[in-house]
Amino acid sequence: MTQIDLNCDLGESYGHYVIGNDQQVLPLISSANIACGFHAGDFSEMHRTVTAALRNHVALGAHPGLPDLMGFGRREMKVTSLEVYDMVVYQIGALKAVAAAQKAALNHVKPHGALYHMASGHKEMADAVVQAIRDVDPALKLFAMDGTHLAKAGERSGLHVIHEVFADRTYQADGSLTPRSQPDALITDTAQAMKQVMQMIREKTVTTAGGKKVPVRAETICVHGDGVKALAFAAEIRRGLAKQGLTIAAWH
Amino acid sequence: MTQIDLNCDLGESYGHYVIGNDQQVLPLISSANIACGFHAGDFSEMHRTVTAALRNHVALGAHPGLPDLMGFGRREMKVTSLEVYDMVVYQIGALKAVAAAQKAALNHVKPHGALYHMASGHKEMADAVVQAIRDVDPALKLFAMDGTHLAKAGERSGLHVIHEVFADRTYQADGSLTPRSQPDALITDTAQAMKQVMQMIREKTVTTAGGKKVPVRAETICVHGDGVKALAFAAEIRRGLAKQGLTIAAWH
Amino acid sequence: MTQIDLNCDLGESYGHYVIGNDQQVLPLISSANIACGFHAGDFSEMHRTVTAALRNHVALGAHPGLPDLMGFGRREMKVTSLEVYDMVVYQIGALKAVAAAQKAALNHVKPHGALYHMASGHKEMADAVVQAIRDVDPALKLFAMDGTHLAKAGERSGLHVIHEVFADRTYQADGSLTPRSQPDALITDTAQAMKQVMQMIREKTVTTAGGKKVPVRAETICVHGDGVKALAFAAEIRRGLAKQGLTIAAWH
Amino acid sequence: MTQIDLNCDLGESYGHYVIGNDQQVLPLISSANIACGFHAGDFSEMHRTVTAALRNHVALGAHPGLPDLMGFGRREMKVTSLEVYDMVVYQIGALKAVAAAQKAALNHVKPHGALYHMASGHKEMADAVVQAIRDVDPALKLFAMDGTHLAKAGERSGLHVIHEVFADRTYQADGSLTPRSQPDALITDTAQAMKQVMQMIREKTVTTAGGKKVPVRAETICVHGDGVKALAFAAEIRRGLAKQGLTIAAWH
Repeated sequence: MTQIDLNCDLGESYGHYVIGNDQQVLPLISSANIACGFHAGDFSEMHRTVTAALRNHVALGAHPGLPDLMGFGRREMKVTSLEVYDMVVYQIGALKAVAAAQKAALNHVKPHGALYHMASGHKEMADAVVQAIRDVDPALKLFAMDGTHLAKAGERSGLHVIHEVFADRTYQADGSLTPRSQPDALITDTAQAMKQVMQMIREKTVTTAGGKKVPVRAETICVHGDGVKALAFAAEIRRGLAKQGLTIAAWH
Repeated sequence: MTQIDLNCDLGESYGHYVIGNDQQVLPLISSANIACGFHAGDFSEMHRTVTAALRNHVALGAHPGLPDLMGFGRREMKVTSLEVYDMVVYQIGALKAVAAAQKAALNHVKPHGALYHMASGHKEMADAVVQAIRDVDPALKLFAMDGTHLAKAGERSGLHVIHEVFADRTYQADGSLTPRSQPDALITDTAQAMKQVMQMIREKTVTTAGGKKVPVRAETICVHGDGVKALAFAAEIRRGLAKQGLTIAAWH
Repeated sequence: MTQIDLNCDLGESYGHYVIGNDQQVLPLISSANIACGFHAGDFSEMHRTVTAALRNHVALGAHPGLPDLMGFGRREMKVTSLEVYDMVVYQIGALKAVAAAQKAALNHVKPHGALYHMASGHKEMADAVVQAIRDVDPALKLFAMDGTHLAKAGERSGLHVIHEVFADRTYQADGSLTPRSQPDALITDTAQAMKQVMQMIREKTVTTAGGKKVPVRAETICVHGDGVKALAFAAEIRRGLAKQGLTIAAWH
Repeated sequence: MTQIDLNCDLGESYGHYVIGNDQQVLPLISSANIACGFHAGDFSEMHRTVTAALRNHVALGAHPGLPDLMGFGRREMKVTSLEVYDMVVYQIGALKAVAAAQKAALNHVKPHGALYHMASGHKEMADAVVQAIRDVDPALKLFAMDGTHLAKAGERSGLHVIHEVFADRTYQADGSLTPRSQPDALITDTAQAMKQVMQMIREKTVTTAGGKKVPVRAETICVHGDGVKALAFAAEIRRGLAKQGLTIAAWH
């Protein structure tokens, strides 16, 4: 395996409110998860973000979220699986048209925040997200963490699932991320992050915080663009991967 | 000419809030203008409305509006033409995906409320709406009143423009509707409405409130479904048109 | 005891969207729970509702809810207790000013929907609601069901708690309502509802669906105004209470 | 005259979106115009902003705006004067309660953005804003530019009007600001800004861009806190005023 994708959440600004450093992070990544106006972003921001991503030859992905701008899509809401299906169809469609207006197509879908967690942990929610993607366009790829309900639902349905890993987070024995509430949740040392990433790519395993090796599939790495430190971290990871001979590119 | 289209605004309910009598009006019409979640409607309501329209063999149209649920898209906002372009692309795209998820396609676009008025009266706004439609899908038809900036922009750009008339409104010498603030703005008598409609279809003219005949193109008639009286009026118009030998059908 | 209060949720319309029959229900009740623009209602509707309530000599209460118009405040959201505190302060304040502008004061607060349930079932949420009320105006009364965390938090803090009961719902052994998902949750027979209400008032007990008598305090009865049936039911309850010699009035 | 007030718009962050440098600007000013959750701000941000303002001994003011978060309250909407009245009552009330919960009172009201412009230029809108303030609390002071409809409506009604001037903007012959679209609209030189401000305070005149002296009342100066340059400019103005022997304080 010689290819790896780097993805980042983009287009999260809203009206006069700015979040992120989209211009700085775009040259570092190969896939953009673009907010669709529910948890973040708006119709004008989506236009600008698609333009900027295309200029940087970055693949376009829809990043649908819960309809909760104040909570940035990070707090769970008791929505039904039918509501999840409907909100994902709507958001993918909106971004698809923004892309089509620039003669471009979407490559993938990655649910955001609480929706990602809900779909990772609950079969019914995972099925709703997957069905929504398939019904809008079965050629769309799904970003999901290996072993989650979301990844399984995608694989079962025949969607092309791109397995996502995190460079700056430690893992638990069941393959899930160590919750941020725990002291050893974050990896801040770039060398350690690179080591984890390379092991995930080459050996298809990750060593947990407890020292156990568990299997994991790594096809796309999530990086962040909010703040100078996050940008430097992402740039380091990119350089490290290139040095290891990996091609950084989206999966088409 | 033996064909005429009947259109109505549908899918305007929002969450627990219900507006309109979609089930009752669907059997009477041939084209549905479906709200896209900005001035009215939501992602779940759009799903239900597309399902109901397809069941009734009614053609699907996007009904994009200003982002103002409280004002029901009826109060003008100082938005730029670029914002108008972006909001129309977004809304058409969202509904297009809802339709695609049911293996159906959109047939037309009709801007709503203040957006319809802004695009009818201002060349720049008309161009923005038309460009948005063309960039998402140039096969989409545009509903617009004959002689307005919106109709002209559509015709100039090569879009298929379906000219809309009103059965229950009187016209002025310049071909525009008599404002509702004036006493003779509304036609409440069905016979008079039918007479106006038939003259518009057969003679391609309308007799103004002042008694003058002005040219008008009538390819789709706007009817309303809110309330028992509106439904009865729509049913009467439909019966009258059928009696005159006209085929009631969407333009495909 | 010769006094009982009848309360109803009012002012739930939003923009062009109408919910409820406020004009019909106001003559039947003594306390109005007025939506504050988060889960329902808007600033204009609040103005109109306060005017109408005052005209009918109905006591004014704030009915704060979760910031979720689409879900009508009925779906739980993972908000913190500090967010609950802040949203309750805000909403009471907004309505208080609308009332003050008409030289009137608020009499009570009753949380709405999911917020009512969250505060009834969780001590931390109950404390947040109670603290918000106390910090805005400790003279405001709190509507809460006997035995809930919300009632207990109110009593502990020294707020005047008005204990709320339901005429059209059956109770469980722990004093809570039988969930709507169960077959015997609703009481549709007015005679049975009146019997339950009178027992709650006179004996301070309620007989559960399972036949057990449990203690309950009944100081205000919640009625509904949405639909012809609900209005008729409310009118019957009111007549029944009057016939039993009870004074229907808000607690001041 | 030895006293001058310095005011700044604060509390404009929303959820995860941050605007402004409230912590840095608070030590420089004497009055805070706090966003009320319509064009900017939210219930939690209002709580934090009131706390921070009180800690800095800065007077609290409500900064009501149009219900348009995406447009940041800067684009005009066709709202009625009754809607303006209602939205101002609501927003003042909400902030008043947030302040009351911290045992503090509001000192003033300054409408925001498009609402400020609409009320400055239209008598009916000015009257609506003034009536709203008076109906909630006639002791609240009104910030308005000398000679505008808003100032006149406030003076006519007996409200205490605090006349606002701008240090970084040039004036026209009618006493209004030179529109930003014109080349000489902004004053970027601190010495020139200080000269203009001192002339406005001492001589009660301002020299227009065209060189004419026109009368103006200066009781509060609007400064900005967004960005390093704006903060430096505000600090310079503050130092300059102190050097001239003026006391920087809110009007109580």
